[in-house]
Amino acid sequence: MTNFHSAMSTQLVANLQSEIGRLRHELQTVSHEDEVPAAGDTVFIADYLLERLAQLGVTQMFGVPGDFNLAFLDYVEDHPKINWVGNCNELNAAYAADGYARVKEGSIGVVTTTFGVGELSAMNGIAGAFSEQVPVLHIAGVPSTSQQKNKPMLHHTLGDGRFDAYFKASQQFTISQATLTDAASAGAEIDRILTDCVVTARPVYLMLPTDLVHTKIPAKRLRTPLNLDLPANDPDTEEFVLDEIMKLVDQANGDVVILVDACAIRHNVKSELADLLKKTGFPVYAAPMGKSVIPETYDRYGGIYIGSISRPEIKENVENAKLLLSVGGLKSDFNTGNFTYHTPTNRTIELHSDNTRVQFASYHGIGMKQLLPKLTARMQPLHLDASAISVPKFISPVPKEDNEIISHAWLWPRVGEFFRSKDVIIAETGTSSFGILETPLPGDAVFLSQILWGSIGWTIGSTLGAALAAREVGLKRTILFVGDGSTQVTVQELSVMMKMGVKPIIFLLNNRGYTVERFLHGQTAKYNDITNWRWTSLLTAFGGIEGETCQSYTVRTKTELDALLNTESFARADKIQFVEMIMEMHDAPKGLKAQAKLSGIPNKNISVGLNTDA
Amino acid sequence: MTNFHSAMSTQLVANLQSEIGRLRHELQTVSHEDEVPAAGDTVFIADYLLERLAQLGVTQMFGVPGDFNLAFLDYVEDHPKINWVGNCNELNAAYAADGYARVKEGSIGVVTTTFGVGELSAMNGIAGAFSEQVPVLHIAGVPSTSQQKNKPMLHHTLGDGRFDAYFKASQQFTISQATLTDAASAGAEIDRILTDCVVTARPVYLMLPTDLVHTKIPAKRLRTPLNLDLPANDPDTEEFVLDEIMKLVDQANGDVVILVDACAIRHNVKSELADLLKKTGFPVYAAPMGKSVIPETYDRYGGIYIGSISRPEIKENVENAKLLLSVGGLKSDFNTGNFTYHTPTNRTIELHSDNTRVQFASYHGIGMKQLLPKLTARMQPLHLDASAISVPKFISPVPKEDNEIISHAWLWPRVGEFFRSKDVIIAETGTSSFGILETPLPGDAVFLSQILWGSIGWTIGSTLGAALAAREVGLKRTILFVGDGSTQVTVQELSVMMKMGVKPIIFLLNNRGYTVERFLHGQTAKYNDITNWRWTSLLTAFGGIEGETCQSYTVRTKTELDALLNTESFARADKIQFVEMIMEMHDAPKGLKAQAKLSGIPNKNISVGLNTDA
Repeated sequence: MTNFHSAMSTQLVANLQSEIGRLRHELQTVSHEDEVPAAGDTVFIADYLLERLAQLGVTQMFGVPGDFNLAFLDYVEDHPKINWVGNCNELNAAYAADGYARVKEGSIGVVTTTFGVGELSAMNGIAGAFSEQVPVLHIAGVPSTSQQKNKPMLHHTLGDGRFDAYFKASQQFTISQATLTDAASAGAEIDRILTDCVVTARPVYLMLPTDLVHTKIPAKRLRTPLNLDLPANDPDTEEFVLDEIMKLVDQANGDVVILVDACAIRHNVKSELADLLKKTGFPVYAAPMGKSVIPETYDRYGGIYIGSISRPEIKENVENAKLLLSVGGLKSDFNTGNFTYHTPTNRTIELHSDNTRVQFASYHGIGMKQLLPKLTARMQPLHLDASAISVPKFISPVPKEDNEIISHAWLWPRVGEFFRSKDVIIAETGTSSFGILETPLPGDAVFLSQILWGSIGWTIGSTLGAALAAREVGLKRTILFVGDGSTQVTVQELSVMMKMGVKPIIFLLNNRGYTVERFLHGQTAKYNDITNWRWTSLLTAFGGIEGETCQSYTVRTKTELDALLNTESFARADKIQFVEMIMEMHDAPKGLKAQAKLSGIPNKNISVGLNTDA
Repeated sequence: MTNFHSAMSTQLVANLQSEIGRLRHELQTVSHEDEVPAAGDTVFIADYLLERLAQLGVTQMFGVPGDFNLAFLDYVEDHPKINWVGNCNELNAAYAADGYARVKEGSIGVVTTTFGVGELSAMNGIAGAFSEQVPVLHIAGVPSTSQQKNKPMLHHTLGDGRFDAYFKASQQFTISQATLTDAASAGAEIDRILTDCVVTARPVYLMLPTDLVHTKIPAKRLRTPLNLDLPANDPDTEEFVLDEIMKLVDQANGDVVILVDACAIRHNVKSELADLLKKTGFPVYAAPMGKSVIPETYDRYGGIYIGSISRPEIKENVENAKLLLSVGGLKSDFNTGNFTYHTPTNRTIELHSDNTRVQFASYHGIGMKQLLPKLTARMQPLHLDASAISVPKFISPVPKEDNEIISHAWLWPRVGEFFRSKDVIIAETGTSSFGILETPLPGDAVFLSQILWGSIGWTIGSTLGAALAAREVGLKRTILFVGDGSTQVTVQELSVMMKMGVKPIIFLLNNRGYTVERFLHGQTAKYNDITNWRWTSLLTAFGGIEGETCQSYTVRTKTELDALLNTESFARADKIQFVEMIMEMHDAPKGLKAQAKLSGIPNKNISVGLNTDA
């Protein structure tokens, strides 16, 4: 067979191996079948689900109560390990679950909503988790199994008997779905979607009928943990791929540059990657969505590569390397300087979660998690050569400007000096996500942004979830940068932050509107304006006590911001703090201006595309 | 043919007639094809769409800007008749479009969002419009036609090239959809979905690519208005149905009771109905969703029928009538006292928008709009008998209570005295929507609630839209009753009310949580608690100036509320006003308590449904 290594057969082998693994695990899970169950060795389906979540390390459940999930929430409220957060609305809850999952690596985020009205409001948040590859479980409390059969015209229905409409919509935005229909299959169904959630790092959807919540099933499945192993790489194919890669590495005389990206975080290869870097010493750069995977203080780290809008020295080093090893790449418009990579395919190796590309060849089923350690072993001897390749220093000094305006050019380097070890730093889509890219973060900081999905308002919800997770995993402060327009989308979640006692520092960039859009289109259009709020009154309006449980500030000048950042009581972050920064309406970070030029929208009266005009 | 009048052939005939009507109109629309177009007789697709909307009486467009709709918004901003509102988020925008459409009968609501992130956030609002039969156009600004073909990994995509995922999800919640793909079909496609929107009173969905916005098409279609005629009833079938109905009317000796419901409003038969009532004098009652279709001051109107939880005299009169004529019925759980109608089918005639039921027989394609006038003509001679049937007075006197607590029993009759002619009165799902049912409204008041869909938070958005529409159609004050939990869902839209200069009176029922849910399940559960806000600080936090552009109040006692309601400057409603009413956590209107008893959720540890427990 000459084409034994063809994509098709490789894929087939991988699929078969994956299925064998699944069946072996299922067999193990049910292997106590012949044992006589002890008295009480049953569990309510609600508790079965919660126990599985606890096994995955879930401690917080986000969501909004509704009459089709109240019965389930009784079990949540009584669970010793899982806390019910209770959000203001479902979109915010989904965002919070997303932020929680991002910070609590290895666990998942969970959001519980009610039939129809609740679950649809969460949909943008779930789709965002799909797009950005974040493991989130969406539980929808739904009518009882008998109601789903008989289809009475219940509230929260479409009035036409289509009880499956929400399920169908959800299929578009989740990797697996389950509608629990009976006790016999409930345990296996729950296990199936939770496994998919973790293994694929994508959201999954569970319809939980009101009656099944109270239904008992055998508890014995719970004794076997979920099998979260990735499908094994086919050894022959993997060996072949390693040989192919090493041929190119040799041809490149060790002139290899590593570029890390989003999926290195999402598919959990941080430690494998750290080992590769340490043992080889190759220069490494990050795409915007890969920022903070590699400690930005690492001496072989050169900064952010973003195609033609990169710093010149970074662009040159990445694009002129004889070989580029891309790890977890995700080439979206805003992650690549609008598709301006100049990295020829015949000089590129791409490692992905479930496939590998070497020049023009694809190897399906060869995932990076298992490949990386083997590659490290093979490349280790190149350490001396690799270490000799020069890497530009990734620094961002605060510029001297002879005015008091809080400009983007000044702001981002300045806040860089404010960051500390173990901060969680979150930047909203727009001026913030572009501005912070050029600021080096502390080595053990965690950085969150939503560069592919780019839904404004996401950070207010995700900051809540991230701050809750940070508290658990030993991270310190949570620091958010967000625009005024974005804050208006999801603002009420500030009140839930106070309820939960998390203490983020929120920097609000008050520039009177949707500045990212002004740069894309409509610089002076009214539709990009927003009404100005009394931002420093928000926390108290939402129930905070100024000076005790919360503190708000307005800063209008560099001097004022400087002084605030230098205040130890502020930097300590022992209460929730909200800093309104007055900025110019038409100022933006350099990166955003460059991106806008590349992806600008044609103006009115410039006819483009099809035109039947005679 | 003995079964000439069978449902099947009737349906077929109706469909064929409808298609003939459509084709005739399309022919008329394009009949100037051979004319030489005058210079300049073309129009940008964006302007074509806006002109069609203007023809339908649309004056306000709701939505949020995003880079895929900015090019379109240039045209909106420049349009002389249509104003861009600009909401805080898309869910609120969809709710506002819904509220606008409900008040501006005969027109439609319009919400514009951006690809993916925007449109999905609006989905719950659109699904609600579907469920409740409200005509709303959802315009999504989407990538250009060439991007949709080539599928680059753009921001706001799922990252896997599925550019049609949002369209597929939208199909579940809209009656018609169009993706504009070229200039040749754009005009006809826009016309098709707008026609469906109005005729079916359901939401429709339009994908508007960025390039086609600027593409020119011939303007001549615009000369022919959209054909919004309903399909004609088949004359033979209609005659047969009228005979069948009159047989039953005769057998009933004129003891006929009329019950009006939601679809009488949604499908626009208010005037036909008024004529029927005036010329016959039959007693009339309303289902909750039909409240205010019939002026509640009309002397032959007896109040709200809601199955077993109706007032006893109403229940008796409706259920004991020899014949019940139901107009626009919609038998959902909360609209029927949890399906407790005791109205036998063999004594019931149901008129619907597109079918008629006489006892057990269904006549598809026989719609009420055309049937009603003919039925009125036939029944008119019964006026003397009909007028003799007694109707209970629908009044709700304010009870004497010897305490100062603002109880539900006292509140709803009391605010009844505050209402005035031409008020728009809106009640949020929950204690408000149940409480207000028993309060008679002024004859020309308009009442909005969302009893089938029941999405909490809907009223804050819809109040914005309703108030804007009210201003245009000569209605006066807009008055909202909403709970604290519901307000937290969508609160930011208060700021848009101030921006737009509408001046609703907002009564907030502060009872510390989701009281409607407490009565359904979890009376003392923590998940039904919410954090208390400083409600009277909200309007100023959102930019209002207390005493000038806005005014907030807290009332804790009957005396305080009484005094406020009696204050002329308050009742004049010349600025936006927010009234926080402190109420008991465990108080609820009688109707809600009864409903909760009927549809209560089993408690934990009461196992129901399937159970495999040995």
